[in-house]
Amino acid sequence: MAAMVYKGAMQLKKVAELIHARLIGNGDVEIEQVCSIESASAGDLIFVEDKDNLPRALKSSASAVLVGDFGAADSSKPLLVCAQPRLAFARAARHLAPTSDHRYAIHPSAIVHPSARLAKEVQVDERVVIGEGVQIGSGSSIGAGSVIGAKVIIGNDCELHPNVTIYPGTRLGNRVVIQAGAVLGSDGFGYVRDKETGHYEKFPQIGRLEIEDDVEIGANSTIDRGALDVTRIGRGTKIDNLVHVGHNVQIGEDVVIAAQTGLSGSAVVQNNVVIGGQVGIADHVRIEEGAILGAQSGIPSNKIIRGKGIVFWGTPARPIREYLKELAVLARLAKRG
Amino acid sequence: MAAMVYKGAMQLKKVAELIHARLIGNGDVEIEQVCSIESASAGDLIFVEDKDNLPRALKSSASAVLVGDFGAADSSKPLLVCAQPRLAFARAARHLAPTSDHRYAIHPSAIVHPSARLAKEVQVDERVVIGEGVQIGSGSSIGAGSVIGAKVIIGNDCELHPNVTIYPGTRLGNRVVIQAGAVLGSDGFGYVRDKETGHYEKFPQIGRLEIEDDVEIGANSTIDRGALDVTRIGRGTKIDNLVHVGHNVQIGEDVVIAAQTGLSGSAVVQNNVVIGGQVGIADHVRIEEGAILGAQSGIPSNKIIRGKGIVFWGTPARPIREYLKELAVLARLAKRG
Amino acid sequence: MAAMVYKGAMQLKKVAELIHARLIGNGDVEIEQVCSIESASAGDLIFVEDKDNLPRALKSSASAVLVGDFGAADSSKPLLVCAQPRLAFARAARHLAPTSDHRYAIHPSAIVHPSARLAKEVQVDERVVIGEGVQIGSGSSIGAGSVIGAKVIIGNDCELHPNVTIYPGTRLGNRVVIQAGAVLGSDGFGYVRDKETGHYEKFPQIGRLEIEDDVEIGANSTIDRGALDVTRIGRGTKIDNLVHVGHNVQIGEDVVIAAQTGLSGSAVVQNNVVIGGQVGIADHVRIEEGAILGAQSGIPSNKIIRGKGIVFWGTPARPIREYLKELAVLARLAKRG
Repeated sequence: MAAMVYKGAMQLKKVAELIHARLIGNGDVEIEQVCSIESASAGDLIFVEDKDNLPRALKSSASAVLVGDFGAADSSKPLLVCAQPRLAFARAARHLAPTSDHRYAIHPSAIVHPSARLAKEVQVDERVVIGEGVQIGSGSSIGAGSVIGAKVIIGNDCELHPNVTIYPGTRLGNRVVIQAGAVLGSDGFGYVRDKETGHYEKFPQIGRLEIEDDVEIGANSTIDRGALDVTRIGRGTKIDNLVHVGHNVQIGEDVVIAAQTGLSGSAVVQNNVVIGGQVGIADHVRIEEGAILGAQSGIPSNKIIRGKGIVFWGTPARPIREYLKELAVLARLAKRG
Repeated sequence: MAAMVYKGAMQLKKVAELIHARLIGNGDVEIEQVCSIESASAGDLIFVEDKDNLPRALKSSASAVLVGDFGAADSSKPLLVCAQPRLAFARAARHLAPTSDHRYAIHPSAIVHPSARLAKEVQVDERVVIGEGVQIGSGSSIGAGSVIGAKVIIGNDCELHPNVTIYPGTRLGNRVVIQAGAVLGSDGFGYVRDKETGHYEKFPQIGRLEIEDDVEIGANSTIDRGALDVTRIGRGTKIDNLVHVGHNVQIGEDVVIAAQTGLSGSAVVQNNVVIGGQVGIADHVRIEEGAILGAQSGIPSNKIIRGKGIVFWGTPARPIREYLKELAVLARLAKRG
Repeated sequence: MAAMVYKGAMQLKKVAELIHARLIGNGDVEIEQVCSIESASAGDLIFVEDKDNLPRALKSSASAVLVGDFGAADSSKPLLVCAQPRLAFARAARHLAPTSDHRYAIHPSAIVHPSARLAKEVQVDERVVIGEGVQIGSGSSIGAGSVIGAKVIIGNDCELHPNVTIYPGTRLGNRVVIQAGAVLGSDGFGYVRDKETGHYEKFPQIGRLEIEDDVEIGANSTIDRGALDVTRIGRGTKIDNLVHVGHNVQIGEDVVIAAQTGLSGSAVVQNNVVIGGQVGIADHVRIEEGAILGAQSGIPSNKIIRGKGIVFWGTPARPIREYLKELAVLARLAKRG
């Protein structure tokens, strides 16, 4: 497991250039890292989204403050002004934050099948197992103890943390991040009950899992491969810890799924959907473009949820306005009752 | 990690024989694999449960179709006719689907305690750790990176996927399948609060976990051993991903438990129960023979759920008919209100 | 993975001394282990909390019974009398129960970075990976296949079970127990959406995770480190399996969190809170001192839950008395309706 290394200080004017921010004040200040307002000390860059927090930020020991368009002409500290300060801060962090010290080497304790094709700049950590016919693209790293099944294809600049398991045949795009302990491509939960014996027999789970570019999967999440066809996670989708995605699920692009949510077999989630934590989505549900599902809500089998920007809540999920009205009516009756 | 290998083509009449199906049409057609209707091409066997889907199946490029008793006298493709087409398809798949290329070898990187007794035909993959006094039966395979604690007993023809952890003393029957990352036999969640200090102290968690024949456990699920006695998972029970089973739980035979469901300590689930996803079962609950628990429902401590074939839903769970009536009344009141 | 070893028999009077119990009857009886009433045989110590269970205990084959202050003058078996019998039983178990046979050795298959500082009495099991600059205190053990990231600090007498992953920079106090497969210090779920492209970009997740003394974390649970600052789990807190703790969460002392509960980013849980299974706590929630959250309840963003010893239930969580009243009113209306 690689150590985290600091990249060394950078002048504020260089940061401004890298994130396309407008500089106010002394650009020669040295910035070492990003930080929260609460913990900031000299060398730190902090950010403020809301003008009301600016005085607190200026009182901190940080060396510079990244602010929104509201600016601050007479600031006691140098400022970086941006239209989207949180976004700019995240980008500045990428240039400043400590990163894994990848040395693009294959640790001698790793077991790499001779037929595997690894690009030159691939980091394979301690005790990794890489199966037959695996392909891994340039700039990718595989965390200690991970097991990469036969014929898995991993694109460029992916980062797999330790103890990840990837089942045979799974395909990952570029810049995919997998947190520790996640399982990708496991057998789906499909059985057929024999009417004569009452016993369950396994339905074939021989499909594939495909994960597109820029996806992140949280720690100990599990994504099943398709039964006969493909489970797909679309470009830019972010999945939190302990999420379950069943076989044949189709998730679109730029979808956000918070922790402990579960998607049953053959569910479809279209682009730009936002799903809270502990949501339950039953089989063959369709969540259409841009809908928002509140935490713990539940969508029964075969339902369609439609409404860009509309929040749904409860089990069975309904528009939040209706749900809140129901809760209010019920509370009123109980008080009377 | 073993590669997946195709078993090679088989004549349709041979498939018919293996799954006891009635053949209509040309039995010399070569079948390579099972497939979905959507993706079928030459060499594929597909299936149809519902007569309405038959025209679509016949229009596909599949080489043969497995159908129900409704048959189809004038079919453009050879047919296999069965009473339970989905079941027959699952069985055909077992003869045709690619399977792990087990070579019944112990990988040199595995660490096997000298006192462990492994049958001759056991596959132990890369980096597996097998503890003192472990017994593993013929035909079983242990996935890369798995850790098998001391005195664990594993029966015949079991399949453990990578990175599984089994605590000491756990017993598995025959044909048990464990998906990647599952933890079997972990310490239960039992503490005693010292009334004087207010601190929690650990109650002994020194019992055992027993898993009977033909059980399947999903990826990253966790099954605690008994505190003093035994946690038991009965024959033929199927457990999905990220399920939690607490200490002392007793699960009967042919039970189905969907993803992310949790069973607290000492819960009892009798035979043939079906439990949806994200269901919460509190401690000392008893779910009696054949009851069905809808997704996300919750059963409070010490409750008994009784009713073969009856669906329960909500928290606290009640017969679904009641629950739906309540939801309808509430929605009506809110609209008025 | 170390084998479990029995510590050998101990005279009952010795047990009485160790747990400060009053002995009634023959103190020379040899005790081998603790046991449940149901499974007890000669050599076993059992316990009874409720006087009504005493006759059953006395009829068992156990060699001695640990009882509450209610005592039993004319007992057929020797007794140990204690104010808190369950607690005393737990403590007796610690002296009697089988424990891992730690030999304080570093297994030759472990990979320990030369810069790591391990106390003399540290047990490092098979295939463990220990990164740069790690410190591990005396009496701690690291289970097979675990990966300990750079600069992690682990105190004394900690027990890590197999296949645990700890991200760089995480700090554990003394006597911390981590069940198998848990992930400590993973990246939090924080992204910024670019208003122009609609794509999510990662907010820096470069903070730390600190776990204080006497904490236990369940199997396959995931605890994220802080985004910029620290996620903290307070002294004596016990966390069950498959629990998710998001970035920046602050959990106090002696908190109990049952399985599959999730805490979103920046939630605060004060001392002595009890949280049931599958509870969902949204971001920036504060659960104040001593509150009790019923299983599956949900706390929406930014809410404060206040009330020492008060049980809250439902989503959104409300005092259980209110919630039960609402359920009763609704059931009545539905029956009429």
